[in-house]
Amino acid sequence: MTETCAPEQVRRVACVGAGVIGGGWVAHFLARGYDVTAWDPAPDAEARLRRLVEAAWPALEQLGLAPGASIGRLTVTATLEEAVSEAQFVQESAPEKLDLKRELLTKLDAATPAGVVIASSTSGYPMTDMQTEAVTPGRLVVGHPFNPPYLIPLVEVVGGERTDLEAVRWASRFYETAGKSVITMDREVPGFIANRLQEALWREALHMVASGEATVRDIDLSITEGPGLRWAIMGPMLTFALAGGEGGMAHMLDHFGPSLKSPWTRLEAPELDKALYDAVVAGCDDAADGRTIADLVLERDRGVIAVLRATGRLPGSETGPEAGAE
Amino acid sequence: MTETCAPEQVRRVACVGAGVIGGGWVAHFLARGYDVTAWDPAPDAEARLRRLVEAAWPALEQLGLAPGASIGRLTVTATLEEAVSEAQFVQESAPEKLDLKRELLTKLDAATPAGVVIASSTSGYPMTDMQTEAVTPGRLVVGHPFNPPYLIPLVEVVGGERTDLEAVRWASRFYETAGKSVITMDREVPGFIANRLQEALWREALHMVASGEATVRDIDLSITEGPGLRWAIMGPMLTFALAGGEGGMAHMLDHFGPSLKSPWTRLEAPELDKALYDAVVAGCDDAADGRTIADLVLERDRGVIAVLRATGRLPGSETGPEAGAE
Repeated sequence: MTETCAPEQVRRVACVGAGVIGGGWVAHFLARGYDVTAWDPAPDAEARLRRLVEAAWPALEQLGLAPGASIGRLTVTATLEEAVSEAQFVQESAPEKLDLKRELLTKLDAATPAGVVIASSTSGYPMTDMQTEAVTPGRLVVGHPFNPPYLIPLVEVVGGERTDLEAVRWASRFYETAGKSVITMDREVPGFIANRLQEALWREALHMVASGEATVRDIDLSITEGPGLRWAIMGPMLTFALAGGEGGMAHMLDHFGPSLKSPWTRLEAPELDKALYDAVVAGCDDAADGRTIADLVLERDRGVIAVLRATGRLPGSETGPEAGAE
Repeated sequence: MTETCAPEQVRRVACVGAGVIGGGWVAHFLARGYDVTAWDPAPDAEARLRRLVEAAWPALEQLGLAPGASIGRLTVTATLEEAVSEAQFVQESAPEKLDLKRELLTKLDAATPAGVVIASSTSGYPMTDMQTEAVTPGRLVVGHPFNPPYLIPLVEVVGGERTDLEAVRWASRFYETAGKSVITMDREVPGFIANRLQEALWREALHMVASGEATVRDIDLSITEGPGLRWAIMGPMLTFALAGGEGGMAHMLDHFGPSLKSPWTRLEAPELDKALYDAVVAGCDDAADGRTIADLVLERDRGVIAVLRATGRLPGSETGPEAGAE
């Protein structure tokens, strides 16, 4: 890496591929005040992109735009080369096909100024498999967002075998500057972290639909009225720690450990040996960061109430035995 | 079933087992204005239960109590028989051990007035396996809540082979009267619906911890800053439909169908044949209930913004290229 600017100095971002994810990135970067150049080979891409950005903009205004942010800072270019020629950061969001991504990243690497980091929105391909043909693979990283990128904070950042560690660090700092929540991974795992988790859930859901065990409607309801309310507040690990009561995760594993042998999903559980038991308990202690179980319960309850209230789903005080009964 | 009252006429509920889940049920039923009798064999159970209810009460007051609701309506009894002798509904929340649950439900069946429905909070045992020794198994149902039952609306209701359909219907109506969101299942599936989904996610998370692929902290962050924000608003199926852009679930399956073959989780995906493809697309159409993709995007965005705002996680307008740079 040579003459690239610091993450905080970036003014111009290129988004290559402007579908749902690429377009969402465009909206996010515009709202955060960047100049954005976008390119997409589809004939109707510009109209679709502008519809997406305009549909998202009122929400982004409501959230608070960065100083100077404007849809007027968007330029849709006729060629890939024009899009990236003056970019200080490139976000690739092409369809999820390995050959296509490999070829596109190779072209982007050739057309983008030296040292500028190029990130792929891939949902799960390791960068090692995508950077094989690039001349300067060291600046190619994964920067995996969640839909819509202008609202969901998470980006997972990870490099491939031939990526410079410096490029991974630069990308993580850049995304943070641009208002994202970043998880930087130190190894490549197909699907990264969040997609492995939601893919497990999605596959089990597809099995349930395929076997007639549940309808699409029931599956969605079971999450939005159940665990989904907790997961906006507290991740699955700390959430489960609270199922252990005052004993926390250790008590939860003692109590529900045997359930890992139950046929509760098609996914086989790992052996809950001492090493895993200890790792999970210690990991929860670390994540709790000094908060007691009582603190966490209070935090979860406050959060769930805030979410119920914000989404108009407070349990009505009109329910119950006295309501309208006499 | 004989002389039991209508679900709307219930005044007195018995909670048997008063740990995290049983105690959460006690708090819920008290907040909804019921008289509650509780029993738990642990020596310190009453003190622990009262701590739990008192810790939850301020939140429940804030949410809005039903008329007449009071902690004073809680009676902790010395025996199981006293707890249920005048109950109009019984909620069992004993530890998750099949033998223990089977034995306890048999005792509850013997001690509870004829016709009164008895529901088990089991996390995943089929009622068929728990009702084997009961004299009147027809009134035994599963009523599976989520922690904490006083805040998370979902209850999954399902009977066993020997359960009367009438008892399942009665329980579903009763829970709705008591302010819960109910999914009534017409067949027994181990883990029901939501626990199969969250168990798949939990098992994948445990595998990731066991193999060193991710820390507990990263796993939790990947959900709360990512998919968890969407799942409080919209279930995984409609959420994924929106990844298909204006083409919805059909386009999403065309685009991401091949990912089902990727090693993105330990859970093997089902074959995405025409029948499953059609079932998922039709199920999403059904769940969308006339809402267009644009409607759903708007609804998701409003919801996520409300959740971000309610939980103090709005992307700061101080981020971005203009902020503090000059």
